[in-house]
Amino acid sequence: MRFARIESKDGVRVCAVDEHGTGREVRFPDADAPISDLRQIIDAGPEAAGRLEIGSRPVDGQLLAPLVPTRNIFCVGRNYTEHAAEFAKSGFDATGSPNGEHVPEYPVVFTKPAASVIASGDVVDPHTDITSALDYEGEIAFIIGQRASKVSRDEAMYCVWGYTLINDITARDLQRDHKQWFIGKSLDTFCPMGPWAVTADEIDIHDLQLQTRVNSELRQDANTSQLIFDVATIVESLSAGITLEPGDIIATGTPVGVGIGFDPPKYLAIGDQVVVSAPGLGELTNTIGPVADRDHLQPAADAALFDDDSGPSSLSA
Amino acid sequence: MRFARIESKDGVRVCAVDEHGTGREVRFPDADAPISDLRQIIDAGPEAAGRLEIGSRPVDGQLLAPLVPTRNIFCVGRNYTEHAAEFAKSGFDATGSPNGEHVPEYPVVFTKPAASVIASGDVVDPHTDITSALDYEGEIAFIIGQRASKVSRDEAMYCVWGYTLINDITARDLQRDHKQWFIGKSLDTFCPMGPWAVTADEIDIHDLQLQTRVNSELRQDANTSQLIFDVATIVESLSAGITLEPGDIIATGTPVGVGIGFDPPKYLAIGDQVVVSAPGLGELTNTIGPVADRDHLQPAADAALFDDDSGPSSLSA
Repeated sequence: MRFARIESKDGVRVCAVDEHGTGREVRFPDADAPISDLRQIIDAGPEAAGRLEIGSRPVDGQLLAPLVPTRNIFCVGRNYTEHAAEFAKSGFDATGSPNGEHVPEYPVVFTKPAASVIASGDVVDPHTDITSALDYEGEIAFIIGQRASKVSRDEAMYCVWGYTLINDITARDLQRDHKQWFIGKSLDTFCPMGPWAVTADEIDIHDLQLQTRVNSELRQDANTSQLIFDVATIVESLSAGITLEPGDIIATGTPVGVGIGFDPPKYLAIGDQVVVSAPGLGELTNTIGPVADRDHLQPAADAALFDDDSGPSSLSA
Repeated sequence: MRFARIESKDGVRVCAVDEHGTGREVRFPDADAPISDLRQIIDAGPEAAGRLEIGSRPVDGQLLAPLVPTRNIFCVGRNYTEHAAEFAKSGFDATGSPNGEHVPEYPVVFTKPAASVIASGDVVDPHTDITSALDYEGEIAFIIGQRASKVSRDEAMYCVWGYTLINDITARDLQRDHKQWFIGKSLDTFCPMGPWAVTADEIDIHDLQLQTRVNSELRQDANTSQLIFDVATIVESLSAGITLEPGDIIATGTPVGVGIGFDPPKYLAIGDQVVVSAPGLGELTNTIGPVADRDHLQPAADAALFDDDSGPSSLSA
């Protein structure tokens, strides 16, 4: 099944999305309350999606990210060979090997804050005051369905509840200057996610074509069969020491064709539209800023008034 | 004021800690319910601590980490000059400059998962199946009290609610092999924190002596005046693009004297005791493993039964 979260006039609703892209509210059988958080479905186990009742009326409203991450998004870097080469050549990788090899021996993992997640349709803040090298990275992400510790490759796929798309927006100059990639990857609005979350049974993760277009120009076009570390290997490697939790989101890395892979680089500019897509996962569409500033200093008591479960996407409304 | 969180027979209680280390329950004036989460005090604003009523009876029980982090701990690396030099010399830094300079021009920032936080007195899992290079890093951490975006150095200290101690436990081999430091820094139990959280008015952050002892041997002994990027600069640099939230925890980096700074390296072994201390912040004391394995694959519905607000520290009880 494909799930979207929609902020309707009645509140946030998790909806089943049909082949025309229409969302209809889902409920557990005999449940009184609607479902507002995809975690309720994930936590009910792998069979839960099949038991849901689907409403008859389409739900209208603002699309939200399909899942509210409860902690930072795990991201695997340099996980397609040709992208590893273009990144090494670009001069922006502070973790390049002195011997020049660019294909990693072990998964390279960093994180993006949960609060940087925005929905398809939301605006990416270009942060023009601190970066002049804004770039896109289309990626397939998987969603963990079970608590997983020390899981082998063979049993890893049992932990995967489903998939979604991520645009791992990156400020290349900050990624380079701060050495560790975290800051350059983590600015507010730098993690477009969606449009939907799709259960694992609908996706052949070993043969999935991933494309990224900027203003309709095809920039990235690769297949998950080309991943250096596949989903099962990533689960094995991470869970060897870090307990993965239901709802964790892990982005698998971007293929060749990012902005810094071109000469001269094709950075993103205000007004650009980026579309990340894969069959069955839909189209993750975002335009580049500007976004209104948040209040720059806000006492905690006031800040709480602005919190809701829709994440930063509500800021651009 | 100094606050501890204690799991008593009546539940989790935030306590004021007196000069003898005794904790007594605190409440807001005229409040019916006790305080179980330090965020309730932080969110009530900078004056809230002074208004609290302190109970008369000492609270007995298990010490927890003073604050349950709501997202990954931000950590600044290579932030003391002599430590930057020892790290560069060790060969474990995959982000070393090709020109050999080791003092960073910009803050180097990575994260540790909130779930890796344990309390003073808890056991650190040595993860001997995946690392043979376990190391300590004593650090001062600060706690954010207000939502902060694009804050200048001049106003940065208004965002700082208080301080605590962190032991940034690191698997040096994983830190090196995975290039980005996240995995080597993020294994379960790798973030001892505490024993207390102390309000900013009690600490002179510009002149605070930080010490780390391993089995009573003094290994680290430095002053926060030696920080390359001080607290105000870190707030300015992070908040330039990432909105900081109340309750965020930011570790400022470790000084010279970590295990890999010695020749041969002095790695941590099972049975070792590590004590990180600073005047006013108490002693963060942890011993090295072994820790019982978590169930390695656990359906979400069951996993939920094991969740509580005490984090991984409850696993070692």
